[in-house]
Amino acid sequence: MEINRHYLELQDSYLFSTIGKKVNEYQKAHPEANIIRLGIGDVTLPLCREVITALHGAVEEMGVKETFRGYGPEQGYDFLNDAIRGYYGEHGVKLEANEIFVSDGAKSDLGNILDIFGQDNRVLIPDPVYPVYVDTNIMAGRKVLFMDATAENGFLPLPDRNIKADLIYICSPNNPTGAVYNRQQLKEWVDYANEQNAVILFDAAYECFIQDPGLPRSIFEIEGARTCAIEFCSFSKIAGFTGTRCGYTVIPSELVRDGTPLQKLWLRRQTTKFNGTSYIVQRGAAAVFTQEGQRQIRENLGYYMENARTIAAAMEEMGIWFTGGKHSPYIWLKCPNGMKSWDFFDLLLEKANVVGTPGAGFGKNGEGFFRLTAFGDKQNTAEAVERIKKLLTK
Amino acid sequence: MEINRHYLELQDSYLFSTIGKKVNEYQKAHPEANIIRLGIGDVTLPLCREVITALHGAVEEMGVKETFRGYGPEQGYDFLNDAIRGYYGEHGVKLEANEIFVSDGAKSDLGNILDIFGQDNRVLIPDPVYPVYVDTNIMAGRKVLFMDATAENGFLPLPDRNIKADLIYICSPNNPTGAVYNRQQLKEWVDYANEQNAVILFDAAYECFIQDPGLPRSIFEIEGARTCAIEFCSFSKIAGFTGTRCGYTVIPSELVRDGTPLQKLWLRRQTTKFNGTSYIVQRGAAAVFTQEGQRQIRENLGYYMENARTIAAAMEEMGIWFTGGKHSPYIWLKCPNGMKSWDFFDLLLEKANVVGTPGAGFGKNGEGFFRLTAFGDKQNTAEAVERIKKLLTK
Repeated sequence: MEINRHYLELQDSYLFSTIGKKVNEYQKAHPEANIIRLGIGDVTLPLCREVITALHGAVEEMGVKETFRGYGPEQGYDFLNDAIRGYYGEHGVKLEANEIFVSDGAKSDLGNILDIFGQDNRVLIPDPVYPVYVDTNIMAGRKVLFMDATAENGFLPLPDRNIKADLIYICSPNNPTGAVYNRQQLKEWVDYANEQNAVILFDAAYECFIQDPGLPRSIFEIEGARTCAIEFCSFSKIAGFTGTRCGYTVIPSELVRDGTPLQKLWLRRQTTKFNGTSYIVQRGAAAVFTQEGQRQIRENLGYYMENARTIAAAMEEMGIWFTGGKHSPYIWLKCPNGMKSWDFFDLLLEKANVVGTPGAGFGKNGEGFFRLTAFGDKQNTAEAVERIKKLLTK
Repeated sequence: MEINRHYLELQDSYLFSTIGKKVNEYQKAHPEANIIRLGIGDVTLPLCREVITALHGAVEEMGVKETFRGYGPEQGYDFLNDAIRGYYGEHGVKLEANEIFVSDGAKSDLGNILDIFGQDNRVLIPDPVYPVYVDTNIMAGRKVLFMDATAENGFLPLPDRNIKADLIYICSPNNPTGAVYNRQQLKEWVDYANEQNAVILFDAAYECFIQDPGLPRSIFEIEGARTCAIEFCSFSKIAGFTGTRCGYTVIPSELVRDGTPLQKLWLRRQTTKFNGTSYIVQRGAAAVFTQEGQRQIRENLGYYMENARTIAAAMEEMGIWFTGGKHSPYIWLKCPNGMKSWDFFDLLLEKANVVGTPGAGFGKNGEGFFRLTAFGDKQNTAEAVERIKKLLTK
């Protein structure tokens, strides 16, 4: 009997536990301090009414024999599949029903997708990055290559043809940097992937924050992507489903490797190791795409984007370099005066009672940077920004 | 770029699609036939009122800022963990909070658990069997050994010390045979696993059908199991959650392999590749364990067990050998007159208009056997049994 020893190669992640510990200690020593948290990546607004009504309706159906639903299709119900295809259609992407796989969230799919790939593939991941991309590959014993995202390239690295890769992670709008690839830049990645016979794993969890219709919300807006990309998307940010749990993955029919359609492999993975997403949750998710649902979630997204603008405007006012905040709920800023991430964290906590996330926690290129998020309360966000301005401009 | 080529070693499963095709063709040729389906493994009764009320309550909480829940603990909320521990306590099994991991279902956990084990482990699986055990191991490239479950051993194989195994699958009450291990038999497996340093993957999805308090509902009722077993359980059968999705996995703290607690590896797997089960669903699941919830689900389980008794009584009357039906919703019968599984399927469909599941679909030892299930409607089940009796005793 042996365990999967690759798990022993994982580094423990202390980022959020260290933040929690520091904040608790500070609060204990200063019980009067009104600490504002702008570090979290979780939403704070409740589910919109349209979704709540749909969830109640589905619960009621489950309590009546005639409308009760047992095992559903592992890849999701047609009513949700149709709604998602309609949403893609609005930004010009035509998908077939068999190309969409509904799940309990993008994090599950991003981890589980690795099942269908061979172990010897070379993996290319940007640094800084959402830690799940790296950890899931280490667990599988794969070799990870990092590409540098830096202030010089606007945290949007482009392909280097000297590097050979098989699996390429792209997250746009990015977590943690908020940077967004434009069409030309994504086209470069698509061309590179097609040349190399690589597969792009495109994390579109933050697509709903894109304000400029000229920026791509889906990699399938880019010519050539259907032969080289898988897209992961989520209801977590668009509709506040972080605790309700629903996401989906798009695999085009043309995506074939080793003579095998990847769609077929993923369907087999999901039908064997997954039993579908809760019917109730799928009904709630479909309500996001009704006309009234769209109106209500746009109101919530607008609320968060106003917070983002408030933070971004303050950065501009202070002359602090940053990415994000325009098409993303994240503001990724260069710590002033060349400070290191954790020193700036301590400064903000102690002198402004504001909590953010040290960029160093997302990879080596995150050192000297800092993430603030727009998911907080409007009044608190404005108050936090005033305190930061007072601290840094005195 | 290479795919996981082990997927190409999987056999396509035609069992349920072939059944569907045959039934559809027959119905088309005989539109007047009133076909009764006793082949399905899905429940048909709606969720009980106590669960429905809890689900509505949780949906309402999600619509209000003050009670909204975002990301929850990946391993499940304390309120559900407490309820599950209470349920185990009732049959004398004491579990600690950190030993329970809530998920979206036992099928997910049974597939995903293989992540934490090394690839070279030898896997021992009974034949006939729930196909997911085999397929998930083939996907991982592991060697599978089969142990024979036959009429001679009552479809309850016991350990053979000439065979070395690292991972051992046991499902009791069994799907598809309905056979249940007693304490002495499970103790033999626990002793064997501890001797071999193996791990038993114990599928307890059907524990709720056990009527005799002398039979073990959990492997942790057996002395020594805490150092060699992982238990998988589900709300699908106990409370009709096949479309609502909730399950849980129990890993005792004493289960250590390669110097590493398996609990720690599974926690890492779940926090990296999973984001918790829907808060709404967890509230519904917790309601299963209230006093009123237990009363209501026992009523539903009683309904199914009456169907099982109806079918079992008919088999006894006809002198047909079978397992199951007493502590299980499955009746696994020997086809009369030495018929093969698919021949008996055709006979029942054509002459009695009753649909069951050919045992040959579950493995080589299933040939010559047939599965009927108790999840149907009471009147239909009684009617189907009368037709079978008429057909076979004329």
